[in-house]
Amino acid sequence: MLEQLKKEVYEANMLLPKYRLITFTWGNVSGYDPESRLFVIKPSGVDYDKLTPDDMVVVNLDGEKVEGKLNPSSDTATHAVLYSRFPGIGGVVHTHSAWATSWAQAGRGIPCYGTTHADYFYGEIPCIRNLTAEEIADAYEKNTGIVLADGFEQMGKDPIAVPGALCKNHGVFTWGKDAHEAVHNAVVVEEVAKMAARTEMLNPHVKEAPQEMQDKHYFRKHGANAYYGQK
Amino acid sequence: MLEQLKKEVYEANMLLPKYRLITFTWGNVSGYDPESRLFVIKPSGVDYDKLTPDDMVVVNLDGEKVEGKLNPSSDTATHAVLYSRFPGIGGVVHTHSAWATSWAQAGRGIPCYGTTHADYFYGEIPCIRNLTAEEIADAYEKNTGIVLADGFEQMGKDPIAVPGALCKNHGVFTWGKDAHEAVHNAVVVEEVAKMAARTEMLNPHVKEAPQEMQDKHYFRKHGANAYYGQK
Amino acid sequence: MLEQLKKEVYEANMLLPKYRLITFTWGNVSGYDPESRLFVIKPSGVDYDKLTPDDMVVVNLDGEKVEGKLNPSSDTATHAVLYSRFPGIGGVVHTHSAWATSWAQAGRGIPCYGTTHADYFYGEIPCIRNLTAEEIADAYEKNTGIVLADGFEQMGKDPIAVPGALCKNHGVFTWGKDAHEAVHNAVVVEEVAKMAARTEMLNPHVKEAPQEMQDKHYFRKHGANAYYGQK
Amino acid sequence: MLEQLKKEVYEANMLLPKYRLITFTWGNVSGYDPESRLFVIKPSGVDYDKLTPDDMVVVNLDGEKVEGKLNPSSDTATHAVLYSRFPGIGGVVHTHSAWATSWAQAGRGIPCYGTTHADYFYGEIPCIRNLTAEEIADAYEKNTGIVLADGFEQMGKDPIAVPGALCKNHGVFTWGKDAHEAVHNAVVVEEVAKMAARTEMLNPHVKEAPQEMQDKHYFRKHGANAYYGQK
Repeated sequence: MLEQLKKEVYEANMLLPKYRLITFTWGNVSGYDPESRLFVIKPSGVDYDKLTPDDMVVVNLDGEKVEGKLNPSSDTATHAVLYSRFPGIGGVVHTHSAWATSWAQAGRGIPCYGTTHADYFYGEIPCIRNLTAEEIADAYEKNTGIVLADGFEQMGKDPIAVPGALCKNHGVFTWGKDAHEAVHNAVVVEEVAKMAARTEMLNPHVKEAPQEMQDKHYFRKHGANAYYGQK
Repeated sequence: MLEQLKKEVYEANMLLPKYRLITFTWGNVSGYDPESRLFVIKPSGVDYDKLTPDDMVVVNLDGEKVEGKLNPSSDTATHAVLYSRFPGIGGVVHTHSAWATSWAQAGRGIPCYGTTHADYFYGEIPCIRNLTAEEIADAYEKNTGIVLADGFEQMGKDPIAVPGALCKNHGVFTWGKDAHEAVHNAVVVEEVAKMAARTEMLNPHVKEAPQEMQDKHYFRKHGANAYYGQK
Repeated sequence: MLEQLKKEVYEANMLLPKYRLITFTWGNVSGYDPESRLFVIKPSGVDYDKLTPDDMVVVNLDGEKVEGKLNPSSDTATHAVLYSRFPGIGGVVHTHSAWATSWAQAGRGIPCYGTTHADYFYGEIPCIRNLTAEEIADAYEKNTGIVLADGFEQMGKDPIAVPGALCKNHGVFTWGKDAHEAVHNAVVVEEVAKMAARTEMLNPHVKEAPQEMQDKHYFRKHGANAYYGQK
Repeated sequence: MLEQLKKEVYEANMLLPKYRLITFTWGNVSGYDPESRLFVIKPSGVDYDKLTPDDMVVVNLDGEKVEGKLNPSSDTATHAVLYSRFPGIGGVVHTHSAWATSWAQAGRGIPCYGTTHADYFYGEIPCIRNLTAEEIADAYEKNTGIVLADGFEQMGKDPIAVPGALCKNHGVFTWGKDAHEAVHNAVVVEEVAKMAARTEMLNPHVKEAPQEMQDKHYFRKHGANAYYGQK
């Protein structure tokens, strides 16, 4: 079932090593099928150079395996929550990419210091709080998704305009209209994380980019008046 | 038309990923034909691995498309202004290369700390001010070029001796006698941006290289008495 | 003798340049055979691109050569001590990988700032003290192992739960159930060393990851209740 | 003439891009023939991917071309002085490798923070002072060599035990028994420059490695009692 989606999710997973977003198996990509309300995800702990489209696992929104010979990613429950809570997204990525994870370990969101960031993320990429000991003991991976989605609600952030977040002391989740776009956004987070760190090194008193500039760049690529790229 | 220039501009664009100056489509190169007063530029938002010489777009100095099946780069109007205002240049590059963009985001020009810089850029590589909200609303890309060229005039900088600039909270523009030399200069900016950042990390009180050393290195490669390379 | 182990140790050694853990010949991997109480190690100072499985040297736990046409690694005596003192390990790696060695040169252990670290190392990766002038003069390489193992005892660290250490002003040793896992752990040390350094750059007052989070991640991959990966 | 040496020098030059020590043509290697008191050096400003052994230029110790169709490197006079003043060396390298050049731009020698450094360089890698305006105007490249060699004399440094130096606001010179070893030492300088910078970032109050450790590592690889590598 969902053979075409398995192929897409497999290919999106293979982009993680290509874009140097992961070491070993420290990452996973999933893709969602809105019709069946199922999603396809990488199996847990399988080497990227041994992965095949056939190894992909089909899971429902409760995080239960529906089809597949292997265990799904240990982060499956987090993906399930994000699909449930963020309507309209069709792909989710989790990585420990080095620069973004350093911001997560530092407990800081990534400020918007320039147009590279504003082209993709409208405002700060937030750092989501740690889970409590109870939340960890109860259902770690599921609660990771819940705390992330609750955080977006509390901050009034639109997950479509801010397609990613850091999880404190952990790593990065990004999403997009499909698995491929979610990977694209994971590359962007890593790149802006790197540049923002260096920006602060060069100017410890730096301020965010002017709001009118953030607006201009975000909206020349997104929304009704976008004019970047080909029609 | 301009088939040879299209080929050159195509090849110069393909150097951006080769030299790791860009991520995805975050950059563009153009080349100018002084006879026809037209220039050739990369199309907007097309993947580098799908690009062909035939995709290049021909544009006039008002930034209007003259030939080509695709939309030109969204930064076309900036290129047009630079060709109009900086006589003698034949190629322009725009990138968000990571180290140089970090300086731009920090709002700082790159001081000349050594001969690597002095071999190509005579004095500081300036950081050009942000556009005002009005300049953004009115004609963002065109005004980016105007503010850059005005900045050079106000600072008394010769664009031939300083073939590049940072745009605050944005990225880098470089230029040269042709598209290929403009790319070469973009590589130099990224390399000196990296070394200057590390230099300040190692010595927060560092001063610019002595003026006589900057003069020596710049003029052994440029002008009537140059003796670097083959005749 | 031990032909299969030689092949494994050769392959594990070849992973060091692949994972960019070494420059030139600055590293070595060994693998242990518990039955014969012998281990196989890389020869000293041989270029990686000339190495063959046949060049591997067989050594006993006193560090004496048992078989092989070449001299064993100059660090052989350190490996011998680690096999003697850390029961259950089957592979040892030594590198000067750049980020981890920077921590070693700074004289600091690597704090656990996140789950990437906690997934593999339970608590801080310690920095072992310098040898005294006497310990250096007496038997440098052997004493390097003794001081390391004594350090673990004094700190009450379990070498199975903390499969690696920094040696002050020197470099890194890691170990594992076999040569391949020891290399895997060497990659992890380098990656967490890099991220921990950047974490401190972004937040000089950062604290270690909450203990409950370290526990969760360590024990979801290790021990009786592990559920990461395939069974 | 000197065809074998030309081949060696060509190959040593080709290692510079391989080891990522140079950008474009920013570096050069030469090799010395003690019998004829001539040396072979890379031509000036020729792209590395167009270089052939035949392009190498033969020069005497006054820096005058003896054979070759191309101009020798613009740094030829510096190489000539080093061969004259440092008896026993047979190869010289000049690069602007990024980390080492950052130390040079910062005006600082590289302290010996660990055994990676001590394995090759006995004590600090010094940063040589700027040339005066007069020294620049008079004979820039020749005086670069003279100031370097005089610096070693004044500091009481043995060029065999410290086979390299930084030139303030400029770059790096290394040397060795032949062209290949000089390149090897250039790689070491870049690697220790990188690690020393990060070491200071991690511990701003760090001290040099203990002297007994520097001695141990230097002398286990050099001199009569060396035991590293194969005999």
